[in-house]
Amino acid sequence: MVDTRFFIHKGKLTVAKVAEICGAELQTSDKADEVINDINTMFAADKGEVCFFYDRKKKAQGAEIKATACVTTADLAQFVASGVAILIADDPKLAALKLNEAMYAEKRPAAGIAKTAVIDPAAEIGEGCSIADYAVIGANVKIGKNTIVGPFAVIMEGCVIGDNCRLGAHCYVSYTIMGNNCYIYNGARLGQDGFGFQTINGVHKRIPQLGRVIMGNDIEIGSCSCVDRGALGDTIIGDGCRIDNLSQVAHNDKMGRGCIIVAQTGIAGSCTFGDYVVCGGQSGFADHLNVGSGAQVGAQSGVMRDIEPGTVVIGTPAVPFKDYMRQVSFLQKNSKK
Amino acid sequence: MVDTRFFIHKGKLTVAKVAEICGAELQTSDKADEVINDINTMFAADKGEVCFFYDRKKKAQGAEIKATACVTTADLAQFVASGVAILIADDPKLAALKLNEAMYAEKRPAAGIAKTAVIDPAAEIGEGCSIADYAVIGANVKIGKNTIVGPFAVIMEGCVIGDNCRLGAHCYVSYTIMGNNCYIYNGARLGQDGFGFQTINGVHKRIPQLGRVIMGNDIEIGSCSCVDRGALGDTIIGDGCRIDNLSQVAHNDKMGRGCIIVAQTGIAGSCTFGDYVVCGGQSGFADHLNVGSGAQVGAQSGVMRDIEPGTVVIGTPAVPFKDYMRQVSFLQKNSKK
Amino acid sequence: MVDTRFFIHKGKLTVAKVAEICGAELQTSDKADEVINDINTMFAADKGEVCFFYDRKKKAQGAEIKATACVTTADLAQFVASGVAILIADDPKLAALKLNEAMYAEKRPAAGIAKTAVIDPAAEIGEGCSIADYAVIGANVKIGKNTIVGPFAVIMEGCVIGDNCRLGAHCYVSYTIMGNNCYIYNGARLGQDGFGFQTINGVHKRIPQLGRVIMGNDIEIGSCSCVDRGALGDTIIGDGCRIDNLSQVAHNDKMGRGCIIVAQTGIAGSCTFGDYVVCGGQSGFADHLNVGSGAQVGAQSGVMRDIEPGTVVIGTPAVPFKDYMRQVSFLQKNSKK
Repeated sequence: MVDTRFFIHKGKLTVAKVAEICGAELQTSDKADEVINDINTMFAADKGEVCFFYDRKKKAQGAEIKATACVTTADLAQFVASGVAILIADDPKLAALKLNEAMYAEKRPAAGIAKTAVIDPAAEIGEGCSIADYAVIGANVKIGKNTIVGPFAVIMEGCVIGDNCRLGAHCYVSYTIMGNNCYIYNGARLGQDGFGFQTINGVHKRIPQLGRVIMGNDIEIGSCSCVDRGALGDTIIGDGCRIDNLSQVAHNDKMGRGCIIVAQTGIAGSCTFGDYVVCGGQSGFADHLNVGSGAQVGAQSGVMRDIEPGTVVIGTPAVPFKDYMRQVSFLQKNSKK
Repeated sequence: MVDTRFFIHKGKLTVAKVAEICGAELQTSDKADEVINDINTMFAADKGEVCFFYDRKKKAQGAEIKATACVTTADLAQFVASGVAILIADDPKLAALKLNEAMYAEKRPAAGIAKTAVIDPAAEIGEGCSIADYAVIGANVKIGKNTIVGPFAVIMEGCVIGDNCRLGAHCYVSYTIMGNNCYIYNGARLGQDGFGFQTINGVHKRIPQLGRVIMGNDIEIGSCSCVDRGALGDTIIGDGCRIDNLSQVAHNDKMGRGCIIVAQTGIAGSCTFGDYVVCGGQSGFADHLNVGSGAQVGAQSGVMRDIEPGTVVIGTPAVPFKDYMRQVSFLQKNSKK
Repeated sequence: MVDTRFFIHKGKLTVAKVAEICGAELQTSDKADEVINDINTMFAADKGEVCFFYDRKKKAQGAEIKATACVTTADLAQFVASGVAILIADDPKLAALKLNEAMYAEKRPAAGIAKTAVIDPAAEIGEGCSIADYAVIGANVKIGKNTIVGPFAVIMEGCVIGDNCRLGAHCYVSYTIMGNNCYIYNGARLGQDGFGFQTINGVHKRIPQLGRVIMGNDIEIGSCSCVDRGALGDTIIGDGCRIDNLSQVAHNDKMGRGCIIVAQTGIAGSCTFGDYVVCGGQSGFADHLNVGSGAQVGAQSGVMRDIEPGTVVIGTPAVPFKDYMRQVSFLQKNSKK
């Protein structure tokens, strides 16, 4: 099922080995030596394949499983078709992640610097880096070890990039200090001027943007997403944040650890997010807001006020989830009269 | 009117020839030999130009037409200024499209491979292709005939591209199997990882994304739009789909034929669209939704539930059009008390 | 505070000189010769630094200022900690802008044309331009004086670019006539086809887009923003407009002078904006609307009707600000019953 034009298939596994990798218990020990060649979805998996079954809503369809083996919970095992090797795991999703990594690998470009890359003599590139064709790396840039830089990536003067980072094709990195293990997707844009103007006699005069983008470790920034640098002071993204595609992070925003920003979210300037804030897709934030740790913001919400830690808000203007549901139901009921 | 720095003007036409191309009937046969040099809007067209008049709301302005010829309907012909050659067409918009193509052409780069293009020796490029400066084409890529690849386009290892495609400048194509006649606009991004994580002890661990992007024929994907590859299984875009700029199509989304996705729309993962679904600009879709064929979704709508085929919904959360209008009117009326 | 890896620090200034540059009056003349080395925020500024204090809400914190000097208003001066040199300015924000420019400069690439730039022999490049590595400039392009073109920028055949423009990395400019002093951010996309189709027997046939993008002077277009060219006639952006990141301007839109379009805004085709229209982030506009001069549109608004000059609207569908507040309050109050 997985297309080996794109992914590396590391080889077949026995059911027993699959159980071991998944941290699962093999219920049907007579099937320990059967061969697993691939992972597939519950509905598409066939002989020689393993699937993962954890969605209670689909228990009726368990009987239709045709896979050689099925990783599931103790609870759901009873619904699996007979003849299928059953592997019991506490968390089949986690098991899938582990098996996934054991069976396949993404292709990785070889270390080395392409001839067409333009690297300033005053740049420092660590050991084991892979710099693709037509990457442009400016003066005094420092890149750590084993970092991959894609074709047409631009890293402007003075930037610092950590170890084991991946900078995708066509990405643009400027005025940025980045930690380790960061993944900048293709076409992401870091460090451009924030959107700051002062209107003097009808002319919008640009306020020089003199800050930077400061990124921790283990951060992902999606395709075509934009992170503007600070005006005075920095835009800061904490360890472990995940920013999806086409999102906007404005000047002087500060995010704590582990925030999840779903696609097309827009955060106006000078917002401060705690840790593990979750923003649904297309949500928007007015400027200078404080969003507490663990807050969750529904998709398309328009946040105009600070959010307390741990609260769940939704709607425009965003309100607590229960209030929103009440508003929706009130409106639906009363507008029909 | 059309700027020949940018477009090719194929030459002048007589009014009779214009009628023939448009499939229109010339009502004023004494004008058959007058010369048409250009197409222009109803209000701007002058002598030597033809315009198209089909908007009933503007019938009062028909008297102000100064063009040499006007293509219009039998109904609207009476409103056209006297002295203008009148061509009656069933569908003046379609006639405009035909004349447009007959009078002008976009410039097309010559076939050939630029010296600065970096093409892996194991890539196959069909006859008649035009590969621009600084295109990068990876190992085992297969490109059909007469396809145009723009400057700085990146086609990653293993991708298959059909005949007569256009891949714009700075576009990025990875993990993708694409049919014929597809037009990927500049800066579009195909095949990057879907946004999938599993949080283990506070760390958002990336779920390997092992699927692809499978595209049919005759598809357009706009500038800066992102189509993520599937997690397990594929992201699929059917024949004839049109995706505007800055839109997000997430992992494992499946679209039928002829869907129209207006700019800045966001579709979360694992949605299934039927045929000819229309999504207004900035609309958003929660994950795992089924949207029936022919459904129409208003601009900025937030869709949280499945949509039946052929229905028209709008609002957040999206409801049938009539219900939305009732809600809006209820709120406007009652909030004023 | 400002990172000299990224910005040029022009040197230290005395407090007296700072006052002169800011157009401020030095209240504490005994401090005229103290040395200012940097600008910082009110809270972070320390000895040797100047800060700006103009936010009345923060007057209580004035006592905590540790900077050597503080530029503030006559009103707020009383709240500043003792020992701090006080400079009175009518508009401290404007003073900050002036001092900012006096103390720092952004690095600017040297004039000249990189060897790896591909410039058509029939292109004209003015004096003092800086053309970066791997810029691609097509036939008959005309670029004025002192314009900066970034790496991987593409300027397609026939485009005209004025003096003192900046075209960022990876930007794409086609079918465009651009005035002077324009700043196109990295990854911005100008001149691609508008999203226009005619559906004939189930096939969405592309309507040839034969117009251009016409830009005045002193315009900024943000990262990943898209401005489509006109279908018949042009897309027009007036002098002094500011368009933030990830915004969509569709075919045949026309903007007057000085409009401000905040990030992720989407404007459907054939809209006409007056002067100094302000659009909040993520706002959306239906097609063919007239938006009067000075109109202000709130963030995330969905505008479905024309807007009178000078009015403030918000919400979806957008209504006058007061009506919106009434609707919000009505809904919040009544849904709780």
